Amino acid sequence: MSDPFPRLKLQLYLDKTHWLGPGKADLLELIAETGSISAAGRRMGMSYKRAWMLVETLNEMFGAPLVASARGGAQGGGAHLTELGTEVAARFRRIETAASEAARPEIDALNAMAAQK
Amino acid sequence: MSDPFPRLKLQLYLDKTHWLGPGKADLLELIAETGSISAAGRRMGMSYKRAWMLVETLNEMFGAPLVASARGGAQGGGAHLTELGTEVAARFRRIETAASEAARPEIDALNAMAAQK
Repeated sequence: MSDPFPRLKLQLYLDKTHWLGPGKADLLELIAETGSISAAGRRMGMSYKRAWMLVETLNEMFGAPLVASARGGAQGGGAHLTELGTEVAARFRRIETAASEAARPEIDALNAMAAQK
Repeated sequence: MSDPFPRLKLQLYLDKTHWLGPGKADLLELIAETGSISAAGRRMGMSYKRAWMLVETLNEMFGAPLVASARGGAQGGGAHLTELGTEVAARFRRIETAASEAARPEIDALNAMAAQK
C-alpha cells in the first residue's frame, strides 16, 4: 500500500492527542476488504485487541462508528465500514495524494541532495 | 513552531530507515538560532547526547555535514549550519507548507466530520 521511496508519511492531527495516520487508514481499508476486524488486524501483524482498540479510538474521534460490527452469529460476527468510515478512509488517502503530489519537486530535490553521497 | 489544529505531521522517508521529520528540522533551526547543539537540544527538552546523535544521523543521511561544530575553544565550542544544513531545513519546511496547503480543503472537510460529534 506504500509508494516507493522517497515518500511522505503523513499523520493528520485533529488535536494534540487525536490523529489519523496510515496505520488507521490501512486498518479501515483491510476491514472493508476482509469483513473482519480480527482478520484485518492479522494482515497488519496486529493483535485482535490492538485492532479493536484502534477501531474504538476512531469511533470515539469521530463521535460515531466508522466500523459496524456484529459479535457472534453464524459466522462469528463480522464487520464492515459505515458510510462515515468509508469517507474518512477515502479522504485520508486524498490528503496523502494531494500532499505528496504538491511536495514532489521539493521531495525529489531533497532526495537528490542525500543521494549524492 | 507548529500550526494550530487540524494540522499535518509529516515525515520524509528517503528509504526504510532514513527519514527527516519536524524534530530534526526543529533541531537544525535551533542550532542556527543558538549556535550550539547542546543549547538547541536543551530547548527541545533533549539530552546533549541525543541532540548529537540526531546531528550525526543527519550528517550520515546526507553523506556530508549539515552541522559544523568546533569542540572546545574560548567559548567551549559552538556550532552552525553548513550551506547543506540550511538548504535541507528550508526544503523540509517548503515540503510541509506545500503539502499542507494542497491538502487543506480535504483536511478541513475531514476535521468537520470529526467536530460534528
